[in-house]
Amino acid sequence: MKPALKNDLLLRALLCEPTPRRPIWLMRQAGRYLPEYRATRARAGDFLTMCTTPQIACEVTLQPIDRFALDAAILFSDILTLPHAMNLGLQFEAGEGPRFERPVRSAADIDRLPIPDPGRELKYVVDAVALIRRELAGRVPLIGFAGSPWTVGTYMVEGGGSKTFGRIKRLMYEAPRELHRLLGLLARATVLYLNAQIEAGAQAVMLFDTWGGVLTPAQYEEFSLRYLGEVVAGLTREAEGRRVPNIVFTKGGGAWLDRIAAIGCDALGVDWTTDLRDARRAVGAGVALQGNLDPSALFAPPEVLRAEALKVLDSHGPGPGHVFNLGHGITPDVDPERVAVLVDTVRGYAPG
Amino acid sequence: MKPALKNDLLLRALLCEPTPRRPIWLMRQAGRYLPEYRATRARAGDFLTMCTTPQIACEVTLQPIDRFALDAAILFSDILTLPHAMNLGLQFEAGEGPRFERPVRSAADIDRLPIPDPGRELKYVVDAVALIRRELAGRVPLIGFAGSPWTVGTYMVEGGGSKTFGRIKRLMYEAPRELHRLLGLLARATVLYLNAQIEAGAQAVMLFDTWGGVLTPAQYEEFSLRYLGEVVAGLTREAEGRRVPNIVFTKGGGAWLDRIAAIGCDALGVDWTTDLRDARRAVGAGVALQGNLDPSALFAPPEVLRAEALKVLDSHGPGPGHVFNLGHGITPDVDPERVAVLVDTVRGYAPG
Repeated sequence: MKPALKNDLLLRALLCEPTPRRPIWLMRQAGRYLPEYRATRARAGDFLTMCTTPQIACEVTLQPIDRFALDAAILFSDILTLPHAMNLGLQFEAGEGPRFERPVRSAADIDRLPIPDPGRELKYVVDAVALIRRELAGRVPLIGFAGSPWTVGTYMVEGGGSKTFGRIKRLMYEAPRELHRLLGLLARATVLYLNAQIEAGAQAVMLFDTWGGVLTPAQYEEFSLRYLGEVVAGLTREAEGRRVPNIVFTKGGGAWLDRIAAIGCDALGVDWTTDLRDARRAVGAGVALQGNLDPSALFAPPEVLRAEALKVLDSHGPGPGHVFNLGHGITPDVDPERVAVLVDTVRGYAPG
Repeated sequence: MKPALKNDLLLRALLCEPTPRRPIWLMRQAGRYLPEYRATRARAGDFLTMCTTPQIACEVTLQPIDRFALDAAILFSDILTLPHAMNLGLQFEAGEGPRFERPVRSAADIDRLPIPDPGRELKYVVDAVALIRRELAGRVPLIGFAGSPWTVGTYMVEGGGSKTFGRIKRLMYEAPRELHRLLGLLARATVLYLNAQIEAGAQAVMLFDTWGGVLTPAQYEEFSLRYLGEVVAGLTREAEGRRVPNIVFTKGGGAWLDRIAAIGCDALGVDWTTDLRDARRAVGAGVALQGNLDPSALFAPPEVLRAEALKVLDSHGPGPGHVFNLGHGITPDVDPERVAVLVDTVRGYAPG
């Protein structure tokens, strides 16, 4: 029996239910800008060890919750845990970003990909979720997450990060059916993975489509949105007697918000390049919006930061369905004191 | 007396005048994908020497014109020649991208910045333009270019390329007046620079706002678009008895095309993430659109490449005012044979 939730603002706002104030959490809130995170990391040695050790993942997930009055915790993990469980040999080299030893380069490589059993190959994630829920003791809800099939696929095919996405685009133009086979497989694996997180205690889930924005509108529909839709359709809708809201975030997808909403997700992540006024106008009521302060605003002097946060709050308007967040992850060089200013500003904002 | 222009399709299309077929040129068409370019570069030693030696800049500018039936030449140069002329100590390190030895980090640094006299500090560019015009002998028009004040400013403040633009965003939030001072100075310098290119023989000019898309809509208006407007307003409008069209290209600016058009530019560059149908709808008639094939489509098999090019041509519709181009620069790993297929497809496209 899990403890009752003391603060369910996030879950209500994600379902467009009225809330007395706007909930706030920050993408990558458990991260290097926190000295306590850096201390844990120094102890753990490397990033992947942190992800794969439930005790450590739990510890860093809770660090921002203990420090700031945030309205949600998000599982400390990485979108590449799933392909890691598909035997591609993930490595995080210092300053280099992720690398796969065995990237996906051929139809035969796709044939060989297993669909991981989350209870086995990703047991460390499931265990982390359960542990975090226990340690949170109902303070705030816990968000689980995964990468979008397209975004995870880019890393698997490119073998790591990329600037031009030449390899996966080549595959798209030369052998689109093979790419569809890969993405379909990733969609199925992602459904299993997220549903395992939900079963273990995730109270909301988010899909990060970090690289959907490098596609043409037609490619986005065919190679990213379609599989986001498959994942959303496969998600467990209720757990512990409550709806489990889902959030879809395509970075650089500001022009496509209406199409993303049409797949039936509960909430849309919005990056800082779109005004929430325009976003709300594009999607109408009924779908929540999450965002979208420019992450660099956290470098601003406190009074400027407050003003920028208020602009974002105002831009959504007084209707329900807004979860305050950054438009992208918080960067390592941010002063934690500024985060306190931001949280304070959002919590103190009087609705409409 | 300069030779008469034998092919003025580009100039007419940029002014929305009817043309018997769509003109085509490609961003970065003089580049590493061409073996003759790589040979010249091996001889010259480094990129900056190529830019600063008019004979070499002329040679590589003409290479794609000699090889393909393109409708325009574009000056071989770099958007960082202007800050290079402002004594920041530009270096191109192999595989590292550009670096400034003396980046702009304080108000005092901005005070020290000279506005270069293009006839002196940028004489190599002016000389290259004149030489290219002579060597082109009227085959196709020559496009001059510069970076946008915002984009050039990012390199000057960051000291090179950046992923998060933390330094210039910090300046924006902490000392917006200083940033405005820098951008105003860059706008004035850019006007002088482009007008010198026009005087030397550039028949159209393009402003590359490569990093405008990292801004919020409000920041884009205040820190990029405003200065693009100042530059456009200062440009020489006629030379050799003809209008000199200008093109403004904000990468990632698909949502702001109507606002960019409102500064009074002749043509808008459009990257591949916006459908030209939507772009045309957003801006109405009267402003030309340049773009926007996904550069990765050049990896596609010839029949797929043809189909993708036709989709772009169709997407603009039959009205005047479309210059075919990629949505971003051509990448080094493209097979030149594919470029021939693309040029052939666009030239053979029947209007209406």
